[in-house]
Amino acid sequence: MSSEMSISKRAGAIQESPIRKLAPLAAIARKKGLNIYHLNIGQPDIPTPVEFWDSVRSNMDTVLAYGPSVGLPMLREAICSYYERTGIHIASNQVMITTGGSEAIVFAMMATCDPGDEIICFEPFYTNYNGFATLAGVNLVPVTSHVENGFHLPREDEITSKITERTRAILICNPNNPTGTILTDNELEILSSTARKYGLYLLADEVYRDFAFDDRSHSSILELEGMEEYAVVMDSISKRFSSCGARLGNLITRNTDLMTVFVKFGQARLCPPTLAQYGAAAMYSSLTEDYYSGLVREYQSRRDLLMSELQDVDGIFFLKPEGAFYATIRMPLEDTDHFAAWMLTDYSKYGSTTMVAPAAGFYATPGLGHNEIRIAYVLDEGKMRKALEVLKSGIEEYISSGAYDSR
Amino acid sequence: MSSEMSISKRAGAIQESPIRKLAPLAAIARKKGLNIYHLNIGQPDIPTPVEFWDSVRSNMDTVLAYGPSVGLPMLREAICSYYERTGIHIASNQVMITTGGSEAIVFAMMATCDPGDEIICFEPFYTNYNGFATLAGVNLVPVTSHVENGFHLPREDEITSKITERTRAILICNPNNPTGTILTDNELEILSSTARKYGLYLLADEVYRDFAFDDRSHSSILELEGMEEYAVVMDSISKRFSSCGARLGNLITRNTDLMTVFVKFGQARLCPPTLAQYGAAAMYSSLTEDYYSGLVREYQSRRDLLMSELQDVDGIFFLKPEGAFYATIRMPLEDTDHFAAWMLTDYSKYGSTTMVAPAAGFYATPGLGHNEIRIAYVLDEGKMRKALEVLKSGIEEYISSGAYDSR
Repeated sequence: MSSEMSISKRAGAIQESPIRKLAPLAAIARKKGLNIYHLNIGQPDIPTPVEFWDSVRSNMDTVLAYGPSVGLPMLREAICSYYERTGIHIASNQVMITTGGSEAIVFAMMATCDPGDEIICFEPFYTNYNGFATLAGVNLVPVTSHVENGFHLPREDEITSKITERTRAILICNPNNPTGTILTDNELEILSSTARKYGLYLLADEVYRDFAFDDRSHSSILELEGMEEYAVVMDSISKRFSSCGARLGNLITRNTDLMTVFVKFGQARLCPPTLAQYGAAAMYSSLTEDYYSGLVREYQSRRDLLMSELQDVDGIFFLKPEGAFYATIRMPLEDTDHFAAWMLTDYSKYGSTTMVAPAAGFYATPGLGHNEIRIAYVLDEGKMRKALEVLKSGIEEYISSGAYDSR
Repeated sequence: MSSEMSISKRAGAIQESPIRKLAPLAAIARKKGLNIYHLNIGQPDIPTPVEFWDSVRSNMDTVLAYGPSVGLPMLREAICSYYERTGIHIASNQVMITTGGSEAIVFAMMATCDPGDEIICFEPFYTNYNGFATLAGVNLVPVTSHVENGFHLPREDEITSKITERTRAILICNPNNPTGTILTDNELEILSSTARKYGLYLLADEVYRDFAFDDRSHSSILELEGMEEYAVVMDSISKRFSSCGARLGNLITRNTDLMTVFVKFGQARLCPPTLAQYGAAAMYSSLTEDYYSGLVREYQSRRDLLMSELQDVDGIFFLKPEGAFYATIRMPLEDTDHFAAWMLTDYSKYGSTTMVAPAAGFYATPGLGHNEIRIAYVLDEGKMRKALEVLKSGIEEYISSGAYDSR
């Protein structure tokens, strides 16, 4: 039954996930017997390391009990040793385990902002930031980055011109979802000095920090001088260890007042999932450089395949992604929402179709991104090749058939 | 370092969990070699059913992937069949899986209230409601219930007198944490008619619905006539299946608009933990009446032990708890915060001490509850006996030594 009861304004304001909203059309396509290549969602196909499963298996206690609100000590310490590897020193009480990167982001927003406060972020951005901001009552103030320069930072004055009395933080995703861009040390220095000058937190989603290509090194905001009070890293094991279903992430800050707040938020929801923490600790402790470099090699070769397959297609434009496993691509199309849906409802080749994420949902400014798509290269080379072939023919067919005009 | 950066007002407002804040003192006591009987936290000692572990073990896929935002279909369906058993019919799309009961409560508050809105609840109440309300910007408006009548509902006019223009919901916990009270059908009818009359949601935390003693039957708000639009159940597997560390709960409502909102909130945080959902589905599907009746028998005999040990102690008062596994007990003490801490720092018997939860944290009205404690009877009979013996001697010693006056 439809209700006459009112729902809250924030509930009315929250958007359906633009990544997940095509799911019902995909379900119908699957029912029709179509094979779908999923380039639309950041669900890696890489096996979850065996260290995870072994550790989970050997920690099946009699009672699946609450763990500490801040996470298991062994996991917090394992994360410190993972950072130590790359020369970053953090103490275990500067790390709090969260239920996924999602919770890390919500806690960071809620700890730094009151309802009506503002966070500056760079669009296109990870679309779920919108949902978290709505829950937290925070206004995301977008600064637009552009495909032409590979979605690197806009000019400094474009950023500072957005700062108001209500601005509390700058939010970055580095390496970036949905663009694959890695900020240079110079760009990080600009953000860092801006944060210090205006007294803003610098919140960095560094979920993809291990995914840096072409021997590029990724710099964490934890390495920036003088940022101890300002820097908050939000992280997750989902992509690094192909463990999206574990729902484990973490918050890292050297700001003790902020950590005290995170701990209180953590106590309110009792604890993150216990069982998966054993698995995560084992992965952080046991996996060696081989694992990380293997990961980079694999995704880099997929990135290269993506470039070689799409770069020369008429009307398609994007620069070579530098990290993560995404590309945001300008298409020769006016309405990629319609195109992405059409690929599921009206198109197939060899009994298959390819699902992509329309990019408008990654922008906060109305009207932007409608001619772009995000691709997540989370399929192995063989599948990627087929997925891209199907996608390219789909684009041709979509344009030549006038599907858009006959909407 | 301590920061000069400001934290948000809501972050400043959130309280440390009164249940968890004694944890550091307990850690020190443990370091001194003391054995601690934990009657302070609702962490059951009952083994997690083997069905859970078997199902987790046999669902260890290669990739621990995201599940659906609303939860795995098999779990949603298993929950429907669990309800069907007790004559309650719900459809699987009226159930959404959440990350613990905690998330169910936060989502329910956020979907029904905007910042500044009010929810009426009955104190003493589950202390974490405070934290969730702070996160959601909701004001909890307490109506006081009393130990003298076993914490049953106060008079109807005491409830309605608290309703204002900002009131959006009435929140109950039934069977109750921290009191063990089960609302009668008559009490539920009063709440139901009040909700309908004033257009308020009725949010019911029914986490302990299987724990009803003395052949009492627990009524769910899902059974109330005419409440389809108003009723929201918030549930968890933590206590029912001794799976606190799984972090799985659910939201149930027949209000389709509200469910649409819950789904959007769910999409924002992607999904609940995947692995544990397989375990939960197996438990909901496979466990029979024997399991549930065994659970009741076990907790009921502990409840009886608690009564026989404490009922006749001078100055102690409480009525026989009707369900859940808690009792809120009036003590012959002025400041149970001090007493509970003293038990950890200054007292032991046979190398042991007993940890209880001071009740003030369960009240929203300042000044209330300081002469009460909450006991969670989550230890087996042998341990309970010793824990209560140590507690009783502790009370005597505390009073006779004048520990309170020499604070």
